[in-house]
Amino acid sequence: MSNYKAPARDLLFAIEHLADIEGVSALPGYEEANLELAQAIIEEAGRIGEEVLDPLNRIGDLQGVRLENDRVLTADGWKDAYRTFVEGGWNGLPFKPERGGQGLPWLIATAVLEIWHSANMSFALCPLLTQAAVEAIELHGSEEQKDTFLPNLVHGNWTGTMNLTEAHAGSDLALVKTTATPNGDHYLVQGQKIFITYGDHDLTENIIHLVLARMPDAPEGIKGISLFIVPKFLPDAEGNWTVRNDVETISLEHKLGIHASPTAVLGYGTGKYRNPKGAVGYLVGEANKGMHYMFTMMNIARLAVGVEGNAVSERAYQHAVAYARERLQGAAPDDAAGPVSIINHPDVKRMLMVQKSRIEGLRSIGLLLGASIDKSLGHPDPEIREFNRAMAEILTPIVKASMTDFGLENVSLALQVHGGMGFIEETGAAQYYRDQRITPIYEGTNGIQALDLVGRKTIRDGGKTAHTVIRHMREDIDSIGNPRLAGMKGVMNEALDILESAVGKILDLNTEGAGKPAAVCDAYLKLWGTVCCGWHLAKAAEISLSLENGTDSFYRNKVITATFFFDHDMPKMRLYDNIIHNGADTVSGMDPDIFDTPA
Amino acid sequence: MSNYKAPARDLLFAIEHLADIEGVSALPGYEEANLELAQAIIEEAGRIGEEVLDPLNRIGDLQGVRLENDRVLTADGWKDAYRTFVEGGWNGLPFKPERGGQGLPWLIATAVLEIWHSANMSFALCPLLTQAAVEAIELHGSEEQKDTFLPNLVHGNWTGTMNLTEAHAGSDLALVKTTATPNGDHYLVQGQKIFITYGDHDLTENIIHLVLARMPDAPEGIKGISLFIVPKFLPDAEGNWTVRNDVETISLEHKLGIHASPTAVLGYGTGKYRNPKGAVGYLVGEANKGMHYMFTMMNIARLAVGVEGNAVSERAYQHAVAYARERLQGAAPDDAAGPVSIINHPDVKRMLMVQKSRIEGLRSIGLLLGASIDKSLGHPDPEIREFNRAMAEILTPIVKASMTDFGLENVSLALQVHGGMGFIEETGAAQYYRDQRITPIYEGTNGIQALDLVGRKTIRDGGKTAHTVIRHMREDIDSIGNPRLAGMKGVMNEALDILESAVGKILDLNTEGAGKPAAVCDAYLKLWGTVCCGWHLAKAAEISLSLENGTDSFYRNKVITATFFFDHDMPKMRLYDNIIHNGADTVSGMDPDIFDTPA
Repeated sequence: MSNYKAPARDLLFAIEHLADIEGVSALPGYEEANLELAQAIIEEAGRIGEEVLDPLNRIGDLQGVRLENDRVLTADGWKDAYRTFVEGGWNGLPFKPERGGQGLPWLIATAVLEIWHSANMSFALCPLLTQAAVEAIELHGSEEQKDTFLPNLVHGNWTGTMNLTEAHAGSDLALVKTTATPNGDHYLVQGQKIFITYGDHDLTENIIHLVLARMPDAPEGIKGISLFIVPKFLPDAEGNWTVRNDVETISLEHKLGIHASPTAVLGYGTGKYRNPKGAVGYLVGEANKGMHYMFTMMNIARLAVGVEGNAVSERAYQHAVAYARERLQGAAPDDAAGPVSIINHPDVKRMLMVQKSRIEGLRSIGLLLGASIDKSLGHPDPEIREFNRAMAEILTPIVKASMTDFGLENVSLALQVHGGMGFIEETGAAQYYRDQRITPIYEGTNGIQALDLVGRKTIRDGGKTAHTVIRHMREDIDSIGNPRLAGMKGVMNEALDILESAVGKILDLNTEGAGKPAAVCDAYLKLWGTVCCGWHLAKAAEISLSLENGTDSFYRNKVITATFFFDHDMPKMRLYDNIIHNGADTVSGMDPDIFDTPA
Repeated sequence: MSNYKAPARDLLFAIEHLADIEGVSALPGYEEANLELAQAIIEEAGRIGEEVLDPLNRIGDLQGVRLENDRVLTADGWKDAYRTFVEGGWNGLPFKPERGGQGLPWLIATAVLEIWHSANMSFALCPLLTQAAVEAIELHGSEEQKDTFLPNLVHGNWTGTMNLTEAHAGSDLALVKTTATPNGDHYLVQGQKIFITYGDHDLTENIIHLVLARMPDAPEGIKGISLFIVPKFLPDAEGNWTVRNDVETISLEHKLGIHASPTAVLGYGTGKYRNPKGAVGYLVGEANKGMHYMFTMMNIARLAVGVEGNAVSERAYQHAVAYARERLQGAAPDDAAGPVSIINHPDVKRMLMVQKSRIEGLRSIGLLLGASIDKSLGHPDPEIREFNRAMAEILTPIVKASMTDFGLENVSLALQVHGGMGFIEETGAAQYYRDQRITPIYEGTNGIQALDLVGRKTIRDGGKTAHTVIRHMREDIDSIGNPRLAGMKGVMNEALDILESAVGKILDLNTEGAGKPAAVCDAYLKLWGTVCCGWHLAKAAEISLSLENGTDSFYRNKVITATFFFDHDMPKMRLYDNIIHNGADTVSGMDPDIFDTPA
């Protein structure tokens, strides 16, 4: 087994040169969040990831979680690790100091998030969900709710969950059936929710569930869904949170991966803990605004899952590099003496470089999205806020889907580097392959991301937002002056032309009905992802050439990495271009009977 | 859970129109192997696959296999299924009638193989390995060995295994350390072999291991490896096979998938069953020819693994189609009424069509390889034998790697169609995702296949064999006359130009050293795979248009399927073209230190 090493230098390079930490630390409230602080935080997070979380990753996979006597028990070492995590103040990293948080920008939080998920995705999901609950309450809860729930959630004394999905309502939340009936100052919630990450566990004394449900007489569809806070334990007369609410852990799912992260089926108001039955819930914000509130949180959640996909890929890559160095097999080409470490074989180098180039390019795009969110929320200049809102709107589905789609191919390549040993669970590569597989699915499948990019982000404003981002990328590419990058610059210019023409084609297709752009949405999203990755790798190469001093291989390697990506991945833009321009009719006109096995 | 349905019609369409069963049944000895017989066999195999093997697939995954008291026990139902399989005469399908086989051509055996592996890959591996053992003995054993072992192996009373890999010797068998010391009329074998599929089990009374080992004073490297027959049980004085040989099942591997297929670590001559220790083995053929014998069997074994990769992909695809029909979610585009089956959503149709088009195109190529092997072995005209040998040489690595690589992406898409349910083991999609993952690895990793295509199949004869195949493809494409396929024909002509130029570039690169073509071998192989798939889909479209009668949707669907592939996958040829022509230097010049995580 390999040991995780946090890629501190690469994270800091991207934070400094590509995601503009200078601009972020100029925002009101983030004055202290400069490069030095980022470095100190990343190094300390790296230490915890390397020493505390990574060593538990395999144990968690083997032991998983279990439901015993209506209580979910986590794997050995999980409780201690959680205590270390919370005591270090990591849980509240991006939240306001007045709630007990560290008040750091999303830019830095994004870098730290990668470290947690590389080290131990199953563990990192717990604070990730808590952060989502904090955000929901911070943005939409009453002052009383904030005072009641946020200090414990920000600290990590309590954890949070998000309850959206029901058995018949996954991507389509309009089908949610869980009900919330008024009952004095609260509501009684009844229904069943599935896929609840850390829906129960033994790490903290209380769990705060955020639940989508319908009130009686609510409008049909997504306009009739409200958001409720449903704590696992309610306060007793003295205000101690000891009274069990009527929320039952019905079962835990048997999953392909992330075995140590409990995925629960929760029954609300089953009567197990309360008679008459009903789980006590508190309305967040206004009635029937639940879906709207979910959308306001979506950028951060999707950024987080994208980073997660890339993070597991980074860890699997490191694992493959370690194996490729150790494993002796075959002679090197042009050298009869053998056996050599397989890392010397060209096709192994290729497989590793595919992973490395994508991971680094998309890491940088993820950090840019973090910084864009920071600026869109906090920049004093409304024009700059608006520009960054546009960036964040476009980048969110791209980051979520590209980081997880590329990540999926990457973890498979990491396994492949191991040869037959990759298929043996003890080697560890298989776990990354299994764990990462959920990331293209949850928090909106990548198909949903593609529809979002096509519909809300491109068609809705006639391509305005998309063109704003493309224009910005053009300016960036125009500023590349180093003659060694002339070829790369040319390809990027072609890429931006293709992208611009794709935006136009999506708008054209939409005039023929929504089914047409939907038929090519996947290629449209993959085109954006590929171009964004190339954009930041080319920028990184330009910056590296300007910093290159002849001794530091880091800068030389950046240029090699970008060159490789432009040879091996960038030409896919022409494939996507072809699909977008020619592929819609075949799909949209297709009768689903074509998928029957003919007799 | 869905039920498997054998794609009999598509198999027969390809057998008839694309893999030339007429030509095969004209070969001496195969006179009865016509389309009618193929149909009868495929339908009966389909019934067994659907009714006997498919229902055991999930049980096998859940129960796996276990090693108890030095005996490997298979999952519930396995023994009965094996008995049904053997009693139907399926085990000996492609073998000589005088050995008890059915004497059928590889063309038909290939179609049947797909059915077994779609229905239950873990089960199908058992007869697959036995067939390899039969072939080894048939081709290289003495008459006495054939008489002793073949009747039982062909019938299936006994099973066979292949023992190549050792812990330090996987892709590089030159490193094999197992020894075989002469001891009268036999040898005493000592060493440890890993990854032995069905190395032990409870399905039959005896197991015949074929083992690569070194004799004392054998030359170093692959030229000093010999092949031995090592039965689990040896005959007693009366000739009853009841005396346990010194072969110990040391452990079973915990694998990502194919849980019901035992993967054993076998100890030869550990002394557990014999004192003085040593496993009794019989030399096959001549000393030090073991690797040569392995190579003669490689075409069939690699064809089989390719078909396996495609077969699991077909099964996963059927599973996804069934789910997509059942699952209601969201409104169809251009129609506000919802929810509808997700099979109506364009991006779901796209995901299913990606799978379908690749599966059908490559299925046909696999059958063509089966027919080419038949003709290369049995055609009376030496020129036609030679032409088919060339086809088989080229197609073998392509079939093995493309069917398993495309298959890998396909099973992931099949899982993705399920959304969150895909990640839940009970849904079944995850098993196909796990099971299929071994196919790009074993029987020579796909990297090894790419090196084979570049080295032995292209460079060794200066591109002669490659050009023979390309010329044949050109003739095929030239004969496409239907004006509706003019666009497809144009793309195929471009594809063949790219392929021809790729062959030239590989030869050029080789003048700069073997590391250069090795650096782009993956793209070279993928280019061939993509072009071959397009070639047969275009041919299928041409044939279908000629047979189209306005009522049978099968033919219409063939044209749609080909059109989709030409939009969505075929343009990748330009990516591979770019990599082959521009990508070698970056990789071959890369210092492996670039993969270190910089401090």
